[in-house]
Amino acid sequence: MSLSFQIHTTSGKGRRGTMILPHAAVETPVFMPVGTVASVKAVPQHLLEELGARIILGNTYHLYLRPGHELIRRMGGLHRFMSWHRAILTDSGGFQVFSLNELRKVTEDGVQFRSHLDGGAHFFSPEHSMDVQIALGSDIAMAFDECTEYPADYARARKSLDLTLRWAERSKRHFDAHKQERPWDESFPGQTPNLFGIVQGGMYKDLRREAAERLVEMDFPGYAIGGLSVGEPRELTREIIAETLPYLPKDKPRYVMGVGYPDEIVEYAEMGVDMMDCVLPTRAARHGLIFTSEGRLNIKNRRFAEDQGPLDPECGCMVCQRYSRAYLRHLMASQEPLAAVLNTLHNLAFYLDTMQKLRDRLEAGQPVASGSPLPPL
Amino acid sequence: MSLSFQIHTTSGKGRRGTMILPHAAVETPVFMPVGTVASVKAVPQHLLEELGARIILGNTYHLYLRPGHELIRRMGGLHRFMSWHRAILTDSGGFQVFSLNELRKVTEDGVQFRSHLDGGAHFFSPEHSMDVQIALGSDIAMAFDECTEYPADYARARKSLDLTLRWAERSKRHFDAHKQERPWDESFPGQTPNLFGIVQGGMYKDLRREAAERLVEMDFPGYAIGGLSVGEPRELTREIIAETLPYLPKDKPRYVMGVGYPDEIVEYAEMGVDMMDCVLPTRAARHGLIFTSEGRLNIKNRRFAEDQGPLDPECGCMVCQRYSRAYLRHLMASQEPLAAVLNTLHNLAFYLDTMQKLRDRLEAGQPVASGSPLPPL
Repeated sequence: MSLSFQIHTTSGKGRRGTMILPHAAVETPVFMPVGTVASVKAVPQHLLEELGARIILGNTYHLYLRPGHELIRRMGGLHRFMSWHRAILTDSGGFQVFSLNELRKVTEDGVQFRSHLDGGAHFFSPEHSMDVQIALGSDIAMAFDECTEYPADYARARKSLDLTLRWAERSKRHFDAHKQERPWDESFPGQTPNLFGIVQGGMYKDLRREAAERLVEMDFPGYAIGGLSVGEPRELTREIIAETLPYLPKDKPRYVMGVGYPDEIVEYAEMGVDMMDCVLPTRAARHGLIFTSEGRLNIKNRRFAEDQGPLDPECGCMVCQRYSRAYLRHLMASQEPLAAVLNTLHNLAFYLDTMQKLRDRLEAGQPVASGSPLPPL
Repeated sequence: MSLSFQIHTTSGKGRRGTMILPHAAVETPVFMPVGTVASVKAVPQHLLEELGARIILGNTYHLYLRPGHELIRRMGGLHRFMSWHRAILTDSGGFQVFSLNELRKVTEDGVQFRSHLDGGAHFFSPEHSMDVQIALGSDIAMAFDECTEYPADYARARKSLDLTLRWAERSKRHFDAHKQERPWDESFPGQTPNLFGIVQGGMYKDLRREAAERLVEMDFPGYAIGGLSVGEPRELTREIIAETLPYLPKDKPRYVMGVGYPDEIVEYAEMGVDMMDCVLPTRAARHGLIFTSEGRLNIKNRRFAEDQGPLDPECGCMVCQRYSRAYLRHLMASQEPLAAVLNTLHNLAFYLDTMQKLRDRLEAGQPVASGSPLPPL
């Protein structure tokens, strides 16, 4: 038993649960910070722990290219390599590979692509993606899928989904045969990583339903909804999530990949989503875009030059307790490396705190939509 | 009384003391990390506190240009602006202005220069440098001096020194008349900043002696030896320090500006220097140059790719306790912002720990030179 998922309370469609993974118990709904190349950019691991993060995401494509999954395996796996001892989810590499556009070629067997680092030729198949993720030693690995582009007509979405479903079967078969090869040491007896399936199907509800049903037949310990946040209008994202969720098992974790803004992650969690990840809080922070209880602000703005208040008067994070907007604006204006550190710490604190409040409300069985302290952005 | 300096023990020529400044008691000999534009690059203030730093340096030239000293005054001074509540020393701006080379013009009155940021025209006089430093609210301000270039012939060094001495008088007169205008709040009743004089004189011992004697007549609360580490051979640096120190009062703090490597700072402290500062540990860290008890290493080197050991097996810092050389090399290779944070934390820990061990040995009256755990670099 490598994943146990228990739902404590439900409120509307929202679920308050706990997911027990080999490296951590994760309270859900959860937002997972992205640590692309074995680092949540600019944040030391002990501060990430202080923020309360229990699970982070690593990117298979990036880690495969540099420093290489076999090196990470030799170093004892990703947890030990980066000294992050809580849970890690890795994506399949598919999304990143498909983002390469001109540099890739898809066949039944897999994807041929060129590295964004040096142009070198590489090949990812479902089997190879599983090997890489097992070598990394993630708690949750993702099936290798084709992320259908947006827009895509029905025939294209159909064809892409069929490939994804064949790859899901290959992913699962290979993963189950090799998951014992994870690099964890003897402190995890009998524990193995978990493989989640990914629902694709473009923006077509019948394809999404079919994808969900076919994956459920394959019996994964958790399911993701992929292929969203790829350029479609937000109403469509919500609609596809709402249409897909009923076809996923109620007793297993449900993960929407690559979302979103603070009000989005609250909304999706209210709809019954248990897990989400996004580069937004960390990437935006490095550009000076700050999320607060009063909405978004760009800390580079001149109007903050003499603002002695904190980024967010409602926030209890270490940045808001200590530094002024004036100082943080100065750090951005002076291109000081500390700007990225402090802005990221705040944005992650805001996201994680948003989820904590949401979990508290779900636990109390309170209707979430009304009385939410989160204003629209 | 804004500065009290007490020497507890001496060992050879080395002195173990405590300097009480308005914002902190500083144990000497001390190494001061450099926080050029209101940030010790890449290090959050609470981690700088955890490292044990009691005093840091701010650069007057940079802060004057951005965000501007009057803005910092309105924000309550540099301590409050950057939320660093221990001591701050500011340089006079002279060294930076003289580094501008083509962009400056020196007259009896002061220095005309162009900003390295936007080419805008500015003028620094001794009086203006004092105004800026008082507005910043530093615990220790430095007299405005001309940093004599190296090499400089005797006539040039003589002329430059005469200017520096006239500027020292003007600095002191203006500083004493205005030091009450520091931006500190009512928690520092009766406390004012301190102005240190700076000994120049190029590489000429008689000029150095004359400079020291003339400054001592002016009666500063502390004295710096400037114009070193400007390209001269290291033996000459040591010689000038050794020749100058005897002409500075034994009961006042003695500061050598802009040094140095770990073995240098130990050596100078053994010679009777109480204070030093240098960008070396922080700047080198950002380029992957790491100081350890076993010497220097470049963490970017391929030979560390699978090295599971810490940067320094003798070091107890938070970086050495948690991360491997393999991981830190990966962060540098991937140009991750965390590399600068962790490398800087280690290098500063190494410098501050080096000084702590030195203070312990001085306190114990142990001969420092023998049995030193610091191998030559």
